[in-house]
Amino acid sequence: MDVRAAVAFQAGKPLSIETVQLQGPRAGEVLVEIKATGVCHTDAFTLSGADPEGLFPAILGHEGAGVVVEVGPGVKSVKPGDHVIPLYTPECRECEYCLNPKTNLCQAIRPTQGRGVMPDGSSRFSINGEMIHHYMGTSTFANYTVLPEIAVAKIREDAPFDKVCYIGCGVTTGIGAVIYTAKVEPGSKVVVFGLGGIGLNVIQGARMAGADMIVGVDINPAKRELAERFGMTHFVNPREVEGDLVPYLVDITKGGADYSFECVGNSTLMRQALECAHKGWGTSVIIGVAGAGEEISTRPFQLVTGRNWRGSAFGGARGRTDVPKIVDWYMEGKINIDDLITHVMPLERINDAFDLMHEGKSIRSVITF
Amino acid sequence: MDVRAAVAFQAGKPLSIETVQLQGPRAGEVLVEIKATGVCHTDAFTLSGADPEGLFPAILGHEGAGVVVEVGPGVKSVKPGDHVIPLYTPECRECEYCLNPKTNLCQAIRPTQGRGVMPDGSSRFSINGEMIHHYMGTSTFANYTVLPEIAVAKIREDAPFDKVCYIGCGVTTGIGAVIYTAKVEPGSKVVVFGLGGIGLNVIQGARMAGADMIVGVDINPAKRELAERFGMTHFVNPREVEGDLVPYLVDITKGGADYSFECVGNSTLMRQALECAHKGWGTSVIIGVAGAGEEISTRPFQLVTGRNWRGSAFGGARGRTDVPKIVDWYMEGKINIDDLITHVMPLERINDAFDLMHEGKSIRSVITF
Repeated sequence: MDVRAAVAFQAGKPLSIETVQLQGPRAGEVLVEIKATGVCHTDAFTLSGADPEGLFPAILGHEGAGVVVEVGPGVKSVKPGDHVIPLYTPECRECEYCLNPKTNLCQAIRPTQGRGVMPDGSSRFSINGEMIHHYMGTSTFANYTVLPEIAVAKIREDAPFDKVCYIGCGVTTGIGAVIYTAKVEPGSKVVVFGLGGIGLNVIQGARMAGADMIVGVDINPAKRELAERFGMTHFVNPREVEGDLVPYLVDITKGGADYSFECVGNSTLMRQALECAHKGWGTSVIIGVAGAGEEISTRPFQLVTGRNWRGSAFGGARGRTDVPKIVDWYMEGKINIDDLITHVMPLERINDAFDLMHEGKSIRSVITF
Repeated sequence: MDVRAAVAFQAGKPLSIETVQLQGPRAGEVLVEIKATGVCHTDAFTLSGADPEGLFPAILGHEGAGVVVEVGPGVKSVKPGDHVIPLYTPECRECEYCLNPKTNLCQAIRPTQGRGVMPDGSSRFSINGEMIHHYMGTSTFANYTVLPEIAVAKIREDAPFDKVCYIGCGVTTGIGAVIYTAKVEPGSKVVVFGLGGIGLNVIQGARMAGADMIVGVDINPAKRELAERFGMTHFVNPREVEGDLVPYLVDITKGGADYSFECVGNSTLMRQALECAHKGWGTSVIIGVAGAGEEISTRPFQLVTGRNWRGSAFGGARGRTDVPKIVDWYMEGKINIDDLITHVMPLERINDAFDLMHEGKSIRSVITF
């Protein structure tokens, strides 16, 4: 079938809006009409060429929501008409990873997903006979896409696509890191580095988990107001702190953060986030993605005295299990997504969404089809 | 009273056997007759002058066992005649740390302990009117010592002092890191870097916890036999591995260690220990103490993909609560201490114990009084 898609033909160039060919779903696959998709930094990272695993040409996009149109042979968990969110972290419920309660990193289709193809090794997308790669197993920058059955989360039908698409990545990454990875308890003191979309979602996750103190750290004071609306209780601008940031944060938290989160992807901040964690029990979670080859460092004494350094991918969430719950939380008013979606535009303007992101003018732009 | 003690008058010099003066216990303190004490690398580290917090003159020693002789006013938990193990990590059961189940690092007397004095700010030891510092709150290189009540663990009376003194540091540090810090589950795959005393105790802790595979890593093949007796199932000599050690360890563990332990204090090994941990859920625990100023590094991707980096001090054990249990385990034959105590000697030969350690000829030397 013919679909409308934004194609990344080569690194560093704008996306090109094209009519591309999409084959129907094979065994274990589903065809989904994408109704809305967010534009995320990870898409921009790959498009820039900085991602060493980036493949071209490709249809990017990994933060979508839509409706199942057709299912291939053997598909049992969804049917045409079901509303779904595509999952770049699938959940097969059968692999060694899915069966281990400590991780969400299903490996069932990892190799083919990394090679930009479906689990059978082929692509469903092409243009003029030339194969186009899938991206993160989702390729949501198209009005139709084909996904493995294990890579779709069925959600309630009254949830608006142009909001809950954000749960496909950013919302879950932030809120999940608090709830599933760190398991923040009521009464906790939390420090959040970076008040972009992920940081704001960490903040509202911490509020939902009952944190007493939620300190936001950002060099841009303009981010304060919105962060406070999401639950931040204290704002720290490192440029206004006299002396070192870490002892300042330890001081205002009366001993350090029970939980700290790095939401920027900066290895210096990752170290500060660890070192502002409380002696004895503080856990620091890395969410941001650092540049290729960057390293984090600290003195081992920081760990021996009880700090815990870990990371979170897709918020530690199991897609098919947890994503529908987060959609429910949104529909019940427990979490705020509306205020994070600053721009909505049609596919034809998707390059504007990348520009807005690079200029720091958007939190999240959503493309609607 | 006059006591016999090995005094460290200055860094880098042998200990000097002296008759020193010891004042009796004040409020909240107990006088303990030390019957046996191990000689540990930490004592050697301080004696060498490399410990930036080392104080002189001091009576070193922190791995003892003995009998309560006298208690000061207000002491309720022990009485004369009780057998005890001194605790360099006390357990007050009242401070913010003791009341948090995530840590064992009681802070009740931390500042004075660090300054080499009793909690009231004074020392009980002197020689010819000159004050001698306490060390780690324990000073077990003397046939009598004074300890805060919160720094003694009461143990069963049939336990032999010259064996269970080792539970005062090395045994608990190794076994506890497995049981209390990492919480190794039955069926786990464990990798242990360094087959000295701590590593051997980690191995027997892992065996007790039901680990399926216990890989020991050491450049000295002579350590293999004893490690196997303690439960090691696979030996890896990095000098005999072709190519990089980390992928080799990931390969033989079929994906990586569920738990890895660094028992040497080498920051390169700490990184290898982390990176050989299993994607998704592997936990790496630093036990060894690195040199001052050394740093550990890795790529943040290692954490974001689910590895967990932490440390352990005194095995995460709560001294008054857990040390008596470990003594029971020894008495019940669940753990082996006898084979780790390679030398027993009187206080007068204590410098020989340091020499044996430096020459790598001992696992643990014990001084008996």
